[in-house]
Amino acid sequence: MRLFGGIEAGGTKFVCMIGNSPDDVLAEKRFSTINPSETIQQAIDFFTPYASSGELAAVGIASFGPIDLNPDSQTYGYITTTPKAGWNYVDLRGEIQRKLKVPVAFDTDVNAAAFGEQYWREENRFLDPFIYMTVGTGIGVGAIINGSLLHGLIHTEAGHMIISHDMQRDPFPGVCPYHGDCFEGLASGISISKRWGQAAETLPDLHPAWDLEAEYIALALLNLIYVYSPKRIILGGGVSQHPGIFDVVRHKVQYFNKDYVHSPFLIKGIDDYILPPSLGNRSGVLGSIAMAIELATK
Amino acid sequence: MRLFGGIEAGGTKFVCMIGNSPDDVLAEKRFSTINPSETIQQAIDFFTPYASSGELAAVGIASFGPIDLNPDSQTYGYITTTPKAGWNYVDLRGEIQRKLKVPVAFDTDVNAAAFGEQYWREENRFLDPFIYMTVGTGIGVGAIINGSLLHGLIHTEAGHMIISHDMQRDPFPGVCPYHGDCFEGLASGISISKRWGQAAETLPDLHPAWDLEAEYIALALLNLIYVYSPKRIILGGGVSQHPGIFDVVRHKVQYFNKDYVHSPFLIKGIDDYILPPSLGNRSGVLGSIAMAIELATK
Repeated sequence: MRLFGGIEAGGTKFVCMIGNSPDDVLAEKRFSTINPSETIQQAIDFFTPYASSGELAAVGIASFGPIDLNPDSQTYGYITTTPKAGWNYVDLRGEIQRKLKVPVAFDTDVNAAAFGEQYWREENRFLDPFIYMTVGTGIGVGAIINGSLLHGLIHTEAGHMIISHDMQRDPFPGVCPYHGDCFEGLASGISISKRWGQAAETLPDLHPAWDLEAEYIALALLNLIYVYSPKRIILGGGVSQHPGIFDVVRHKVQYFNKDYVHSPFLIKGIDDYILPPSLGNRSGVLGSIAMAIELATK
Repeated sequence: MRLFGGIEAGGTKFVCMIGNSPDDVLAEKRFSTINPSETIQQAIDFFTPYASSGELAAVGIASFGPIDLNPDSQTYGYITTTPKAGWNYVDLRGEIQRKLKVPVAFDTDVNAAAFGEQYWREENRFLDPFIYMTVGTGIGVGAIINGSLLHGLIHTEAGHMIISHDMQRDPFPGVCPYHGDCFEGLASGISISKRWGQAAETLPDLHPAWDLEAEYIALALLNLIYVYSPKRIILGGGVSQHPGIFDVVRHKVQYFNKDYVHSPFLIKGIDDYILPPSLGNRSGVLGSIAMAIELATK
């Protein structure tokens, strides 16, 4: 029997999973992200029984970033210049591979989520470009283009796009430590709580925060539509789970587009064009299992 | 002997070329874009002797847009919803193919330019993603990602990204008939002449127009860097030929990035990262010849 492992390595928690598909999960464990040595050791402990028995064929890692994805680099598989204390230049992939002694696939959390949503869902399989965007504590984008995940200089950092910011409507300067009012600086969960003085989850449905939030998400999606020309966009993350926000976002995307990109996907078909993740909050970890399967079978 | 044809179909002029490479061009002709039937006929007349003799192996077309790139569509090869009078839903590719009876490759002018810059230049061959942006009368972007030109819902329309617009510094509302102050609306040659009341070419070097222009180009490039994570960007078009503008654009890209994408390409290497076209103003037409060669030999 061959089994595959997936790790969603997030800045606040790790999710480890062993199985073969979304419907065939043998075990799953969640734990807080503390220092690298203890956190990585917990992941290794989770997989060790399957590695020792010879059942574990490969592991995939969906990591927070920025990370080094260049296989020719000396720091391939590292988390690099993260602001997260203690995690600067941590050899996440190397540690896992040395201890478990199986092939290890490695990518960003959002690229893995895009991969998972496409790999495990027949209806997404041939939609290319295919985009996953998460709006939660932070904002990230993953992309599959011409059949493969987008890697380049590094990986896409579209969460940090500079978008239109109307200072009269929203004088909040943004929270991004690098850019101030980039998209993530204006629309992440952290920016919502700082702007309004309370956590996003506690804001009532009719609070003006939600219209502003939907507007920033729509402006960012419009730019992604213009730049990538995607065939489908999956919008995940905690903030995007706010009731009713999808309808407002879709409407605003149409409004800002002004019918410039004249496509049925954006007009009649928009409810099928901008969608929540079909794998719920498991896109990343199930994507990392899909990456492990791909690595072991190619 | 086998020869290849290239057509750069622009909104103001057509360029037709026959040859085998940038160093082996047999003939070249430029003429104004008037109505579709006469303009397309001129292109056909140019190639007919080579088609009749059997030497013409294939033709590539680099077209203004928007265009239909979906081979399964009933309007594949058409110029679609262009605002250019008379050119709405013109079957450009079909007309050429029916008359010349050779395989015809078809893409956007900017995708063809990206393709040409990569195909004809060894040093660009393995840089992926690879981006071409033109800033002239209009603004367009072409992209090669994971080895192929980017096609999706349609093609990239990154020229129409909504970028940051500081109304206090620049109260000009922009000229885009769809979006007003999108990137093209704020930074195209047309917007420069409307904002300052004189053509870009006539503005002196020390005019504040140039610093503002460089700023908009840099903001757009930063977004492209964050979204595509390209390994090289070629910046072409008339406006970008203004003396000294490259240095200012590169400096501003670094300034806006705040070292967030921490890469030698963006720091020490920026003079090799954002570059003028190595094929001058022939990237598009030489790219269309490269597309013809690819089509005939694959």
